[in-house]
Amino acid sequence: MAKPEKKLQDLKTRLLEVGDLNHINALLGWDQTTYMPPGGAEARGRQSALMARMAQEKFIDKKIGKLLDDLRSYEESLPYDSDDASLIRVSRREYERALKVPPEFIGELSEHGAMSYQAWAEARPANDFSRVRANLEKTLELSRKLADFFGDYEHIADPLIDFADYGMKASTVRALFADLRDQLVPIVRSITSQPPVDDSALHKRYPEAEQLSFGAEVVKQLGYDFSRGRIDKTHHPFMTKFSLGDVRITTRVKENYLGDCLFSNMHEAGHAMYEQGIDMSYEGMPLGGGTSAGVHESQSRLWENIVGRSRGFWEYMYPKLQAHFPEQLNSVSLDEFYPAINKVEKSLIRTEADEVTYNLHVMLRFDFEVQLLEGSLSIRDLPEAWHERFEHDFGIVPPDDKDGVLQDVHWYAGVIGGSFQGYTLGNILSAQFYNAALKVHPEIPDEMNQGKFSTLHGWLRENIYRHGSKFTAPEIIERASGSALTIEPYINYLKTKYGALYAL
Amino acid sequence: MAKPEKKLQDLKTRLLEVGDLNHINALLGWDQTTYMPPGGAEARGRQSALMARMAQEKFIDKKIGKLLDDLRSYEESLPYDSDDASLIRVSRREYERALKVPPEFIGELSEHGAMSYQAWAEARPANDFSRVRANLEKTLELSRKLADFFGDYEHIADPLIDFADYGMKASTVRALFADLRDQLVPIVRSITSQPPVDDSALHKRYPEAEQLSFGAEVVKQLGYDFSRGRIDKTHHPFMTKFSLGDVRITTRVKENYLGDCLFSNMHEAGHAMYEQGIDMSYEGMPLGGGTSAGVHESQSRLWENIVGRSRGFWEYMYPKLQAHFPEQLNSVSLDEFYPAINKVEKSLIRTEADEVTYNLHVMLRFDFEVQLLEGSLSIRDLPEAWHERFEHDFGIVPPDDKDGVLQDVHWYAGVIGGSFQGYTLGNILSAQFYNAALKVHPEIPDEMNQGKFSTLHGWLRENIYRHGSKFTAPEIIERASGSALTIEPYINYLKTKYGALYAL
Repeated sequence: MAKPEKKLQDLKTRLLEVGDLNHINALLGWDQTTYMPPGGAEARGRQSALMARMAQEKFIDKKIGKLLDDLRSYEESLPYDSDDASLIRVSRREYERALKVPPEFIGELSEHGAMSYQAWAEARPANDFSRVRANLEKTLELSRKLADFFGDYEHIADPLIDFADYGMKASTVRALFADLRDQLVPIVRSITSQPPVDDSALHKRYPEAEQLSFGAEVVKQLGYDFSRGRIDKTHHPFMTKFSLGDVRITTRVKENYLGDCLFSNMHEAGHAMYEQGIDMSYEGMPLGGGTSAGVHESQSRLWENIVGRSRGFWEYMYPKLQAHFPEQLNSVSLDEFYPAINKVEKSLIRTEADEVTYNLHVMLRFDFEVQLLEGSLSIRDLPEAWHERFEHDFGIVPPDDKDGVLQDVHWYAGVIGGSFQGYTLGNILSAQFYNAALKVHPEIPDEMNQGKFSTLHGWLRENIYRHGSKFTAPEIIERASGSALTIEPYINYLKTKYGALYAL
Repeated sequence: MAKPEKKLQDLKTRLLEVGDLNHINALLGWDQTTYMPPGGAEARGRQSALMARMAQEKFIDKKIGKLLDDLRSYEESLPYDSDDASLIRVSRREYERALKVPPEFIGELSEHGAMSYQAWAEARPANDFSRVRANLEKTLELSRKLADFFGDYEHIADPLIDFADYGMKASTVRALFADLRDQLVPIVRSITSQPPVDDSALHKRYPEAEQLSFGAEVVKQLGYDFSRGRIDKTHHPFMTKFSLGDVRITTRVKENYLGDCLFSNMHEAGHAMYEQGIDMSYEGMPLGGGTSAGVHESQSRLWENIVGRSRGFWEYMYPKLQAHFPEQLNSVSLDEFYPAINKVEKSLIRTEADEVTYNLHVMLRFDFEVQLLEGSLSIRDLPEAWHERFEHDFGIVPPDDKDGVLQDVHWYAGVIGGSFQGYTLGNILSAQFYNAALKVHPEIPDEMNQGKFSTLHGWLRENIYRHGSKFTAPEIIERASGSALTIEPYINYLKTKYGALYAL
């Protein structure tokens, strides 16, 4: 074997161990949030920290640094987009980033996250912010510490934003969000001044078992592969991966609301189809995952909203839904159902928000993350600040913390910073990518009416999924859509769709 | 901190990492056998091997050897049964054993086990031994290799038997089994020459969901702690542990047979109550698990059979069972139900066998393990040998391999050797321990009639469970029952119980 090939093989063997340790840690997390009994929490935190620390130790091993150095000339001899050059390039970028964070810190962060999640899972139903406050203060302290390992930032949130969305920082996100806000607020104002849509059909009693079985049928139809995945119940739905052959989603069910399980499934399946579509030869490598939070979210939102809340999709799927729930829906026409699932209203819960107001929920959280990190807002004042800002942006006051500051798991299981901007970037990109697919395959909407999603799925797999993290977010956006990120397609999409549903 | 205390703390920190790696590996296995989609198998095998190898590497670290040496005089200054002396003693014993096995071998064994399990899970329902034959040959080769790391044995099976049942070897087990067989065969002959008991009441249709809920109720009543455990479905029920706070059991359901889920649950809950009863300060240490296969099995069999198939237990529990399954059981009296659940017959499946014939199933497997290891039987000839021996011992010919050589998971997920003798040792010990408890607490049977199990549970916890692996099996048997292992109590138990059910 020639020398660089041998070194590359050595590198891959080492990276696979790191990947496996991270995937094992993901299983520890999945189990904790789906099935683990309460007595398991203490050890689980410790075990999760051990996996995180070992993965970090193995990754920042000097031998990996040496291999990456030795492979530089081999990399330069290859085309930029070859698998080998990309593996070396992306591994080096992540290696240099990882070098800055001590393994003990990673272990501490992971252990704290596991304990903090457990406290949140009890505090939220009890509507008791005081039970998580000390944890959250520690999370903020750790988040700042993490950012500070990357000295030269413009804003302390920048390194955390960059982890999730490569190439972005607080100032670029702020500017983008300001533009979007300018366009969104008049639409929201116009819609919410109109009489509310009747969505009572969604709020009948829908038994859990039937919701679960229909929810599974829907994502199977979209293209989620159950031979390499499964669905389990949890508090706060998420997608997770233990290998490219095992990409799972989780869900939750409200028996008095049909939309929660249904759209959450399509959302998480969107994430999962991205991961399931990655080139299998990237298994366990730094290339073997989605490239950024925003691009990932573009896929969950594309399948959940652009497909899953479209008229065309329900032309096909609504009779099946009615067959599943005849008592509840036989008297409800598609002309009533379609506006109900697209009802725009000022509401409390981000994950249940409609497409138009959703981004306002995200902007609120993004701004809080920035303020908490820079110290202009304290954890103590956060619940009150949430109430005030919510009233300002939505004109309603959250009745409690349960559906206010406690509603999202992110700060209670990870870090504060970089956790939310990806959702809105994803919304923006979902329309940009869908438009690009339509340009090549104008037949996609007609196929959707027939329950056929393979053309769309195929285009996404070819242009986005299979590449994993080979390209950065800016690169993949440019390659797949022919331009840099732009809000225009998204605004046009909203104006067209909601212009037909409401007088704008 | 004084020097030995500091060294002991250092030792504990290292051992806890080893314990956590093993517990994490147990979770990988639990997930594989309960929920994992087929696509996850390949990576799971690799990940499981990684955990096994890392645990072994961390355990045989020379620093642990040095600490154990340095702590020898501290250990000798303490009473034999103190926690610290026991931790040092047991860790040293396991360390010296582990030193003999290279980590790469442990990794290979673990990876092979995961792949082999996956093949078995498909081959068994398909009744296709040929799909597992090559795997099984490799398992035999690895099992021999494992034994050979421990050079000075009398018989090649001895090291493998000793792992599971400290102090035992092929010759001692053979002698013990010969004694037991002499006593059992006449009982079996006498019973099976009588007209068969009618157990059709157990073979009505019992829907899965109701079996699962009643099965959970029963083990909760016995004392299995759901805040530190849970029950999930699998192919072949087992108990597993991810920490002393998370001890899970698994079950399976046959809708046309009430006994499978029910007695399997009590069996696995017996194992789990042992682990849940261990002193919490032993968490993650070599002391923090049951002491031997035989003692472990004594607890599963005690709760499954001595309690769970007793007349007294069902005096209390049968009305609850009837309330769960009124259609099936309201017309069946306890006088019909009790003989049905204790029906002695020559049957195909070990895990479903009655108490009397069960040991014949075990002896067959034990003899095959010994013969395979010594080379007097080949894997190729195993299915045929199974048929022949089965016909000889039971007078019936298994109609297929599915319920013959493929029925037990052990050889398909672990090693050949030492896997089965523990079941019969457990049967013997279950009666010996129960007798010892009765001597101190003659009220136990009366309490059982009232659904109270806490006195028995308390005695077992105090005399067996809490000690974990502090004492060897011979030590704990002597301490708890006042004598060495003896078959008398078990033979008396069988003669008394089955003498009342059948004319002996």
